[in-house]
Amino acid sequence: MHETMKLVCRECGETSGASEPVWRCTCGGLLDLEFKPQFPKRAVSRREPGMWRYREALPVENDVNIVSFGEGLTPLVKVEFGGRSVLAKLEFLFPTGSFKDRGASVLVSKAKELGIKRVVEDSSGNAGAAIAAYCARAGIACDIYVPESTSPAKLAQIAAYGAKLHRVPGTREDCAHAARRAAGRTYYASHVWNPFFFHGTKTFAFEMVEQLGWEAPDAIVLPVGNGTLLLGTYIGLKELQKAGVIQKLPKLIGVQARNCAPLHEAWNQNADSTHVKRRRSTAAEGIAIAEPVRGDQILEAVRNTGGAFVSVTEAEIRAGLKEAAQAGLLIEPSSATAVAAVRKAALPRGTVIVPLTGHGLKSAK
Amino acid sequence: MHETMKLVCRECGETSGASEPVWRCTCGGLLDLEFKPQFPKRAVSRREPGMWRYREALPVENDVNIVSFGEGLTPLVKVEFGGRSVLAKLEFLFPTGSFKDRGASVLVSKAKELGIKRVVEDSSGNAGAAIAAYCARAGIACDIYVPESTSPAKLAQIAAYGAKLHRVPGTREDCAHAARRAAGRTYYASHVWNPFFFHGTKTFAFEMVEQLGWEAPDAIVLPVGNGTLLLGTYIGLKELQKAGVIQKLPKLIGVQARNCAPLHEAWNQNADSTHVKRRRSTAAEGIAIAEPVRGDQILEAVRNTGGAFVSVTEAEIRAGLKEAAQAGLLIEPSSATAVAAVRKAALPRGTVIVPLTGHGLKSAK
Repeated sequence: MHETMKLVCRECGETSGASEPVWRCTCGGLLDLEFKPQFPKRAVSRREPGMWRYREALPVENDVNIVSFGEGLTPLVKVEFGGRSVLAKLEFLFPTGSFKDRGASVLVSKAKELGIKRVVEDSSGNAGAAIAAYCARAGIACDIYVPESTSPAKLAQIAAYGAKLHRVPGTREDCAHAARRAAGRTYYASHVWNPFFFHGTKTFAFEMVEQLGWEAPDAIVLPVGNGTLLLGTYIGLKELQKAGVIQKLPKLIGVQARNCAPLHEAWNQNADSTHVKRRRSTAAEGIAIAEPVRGDQILEAVRNTGGAFVSVTEAEIRAGLKEAAQAGLLIEPSSATAVAAVRKAALPRGTVIVPLTGHGLKSAK
Repeated sequence: MHETMKLVCRECGETSGASEPVWRCTCGGLLDLEFKPQFPKRAVSRREPGMWRYREALPVENDVNIVSFGEGLTPLVKVEFGGRSVLAKLEFLFPTGSFKDRGASVLVSKAKELGIKRVVEDSSGNAGAAIAAYCARAGIACDIYVPESTSPAKLAQIAAYGAKLHRVPGTREDCAHAARRAAGRTYYASHVWNPFFFHGTKTFAFEMVEQLGWEAPDAIVLPVGNGTLLLGTYIGLKELQKAGVIQKLPKLIGVQARNCAPLHEAWNQNADSTHVKRRRSTAAEGIAIAEPVRGDQILEAVRNTGGAFVSVTEAEIRAGLKEAAQAGLLIEPSSATAVAAVRKAALPRGTVIVPLTGHGLKSAK
């Protein structure tokens, strides 16, 4: 189906086929996935709702390997945030309560296709839950590494799916290191390293564009930590542009919590990569990433779209959370950063999309 | 649009128009809503996904009054429960985390159409959250009465939407009485009394039938407390049958927690209404209803479909919860009763549907 599919190293440029269970280059570099998707628009719009309707744009060879709960095609609804009318995309309406299911569905399908029996992932919560749930459906064993500080509800969720939970003392980065060590002996189902995850989250862009009548919006305001959604969206938009479905790219507005904003700080210094690793505590635990592995890639994506970064304070996050809930949308603090940013960012005229990435039930006590 | 729509009293048979803000008959009796929906199948299947695609079957006159988050058309996915292959309908994929949003969307739309500014509801949690969220979106004030024993996560959710929360000491029935007293001065947005709620939950049946290629399944296994989903499903199926879309009705299998099973007990005694009000504690708090107001109607519906009742123990509920989670589906204990019942009920051959009614994040600690 996708004969032209290949993995390309971002460091040394070496390419390899996508039928090997690798998640990084032999040189240690990050891999990107390249292939040429197709968008048969008329056929797509007649298919059942869900992210797998973009079948010819998803890097899984054989339908029998698809691991899915029929998820996706989340609602796109008009709301007012900060006095501005925007379209909220309800990305918390996924089986595990976050958009991370998009990435997990494609990645775990690929793992199944590769004959993999056990995977490792590390996550502050949402990606771990997503990988655990889809592995449960696929019958693949999984080990999830989480920082010790992860909220109890997220831990309970991961354990419920039957995953083996490893609580790692120290920082989010210590947790990632522990997982990478373990992944040396198995497959790293990482939402940061593994390129197949991003080829799941890219379906966010496909759906949004289809829901707008196969047109691109003017801007998208996205919470950013490791850039799982932002990079997926960028990949999806570029694929749509190459295929001639859309002409220009919408501005990507990346939002960080001020207490942990390495990308925003790099942006302000016009730097190509992050170097400040300061981190203070933030309610937006899902995007509290001091050392984003794909930081340079995220900065480049935002720059290429004429976008920008913005950061929001803890008080602004709380206000965003309240504003969303009182509009009937219960979301988690990491998602509320985007709501808060609508008031703060310099947004273009026209259509602005705000993904609401995680369910508030995840953090409700 | 629906000139023939009328409210009919189940006690005295008196009819009235549906443009008055009434929720019970002047005689005190329960009201049903009667009207003749249409199902333009070809047009429906081309519309956007969501429950409002069945527009000609929903009792709201004017589109401007629709209060919606684009919800519905939840996935219908193949799973194995108790060694039996069934189709699970993921009814927890709603903005507030339960199927109750179906009822709230139609009821609150109707309230808006009637010009109502404030409503009252009582609920063990899910219906209260649903009414609160849709009222938030509609700009309608609401008071939610909950039993003191309701789980903290559900209380936090209702309060977050901006509803005024009233915690009532005593039983679930004491709570309902308190709400009914308050409703004397306002509009009772009840998921038990108000017929418009059931004309929202009926969309469960429409979606299921459309997803099966406009065919009825052979059986549906549903958790039952007040019968919000079971009666809605029955109404929807009858409407589809009258309109000639389906020929025969699927068997409705009602599931109760053994610790609070007035309907199952009445069924075993071949009674037309419930009379045993025994209640012991159960994890299935969403269906722990000792005195179901529409009990006779629920018994009649199940009887008319050739269905049955079954009840499950606390250990079986726990096992159902675990079985679902380890299949990647995190649900709440009330929903797990249906999973447990698949193993226990005498099910026909053919297609069996199991709605998974509430998100597990609601009860995760």
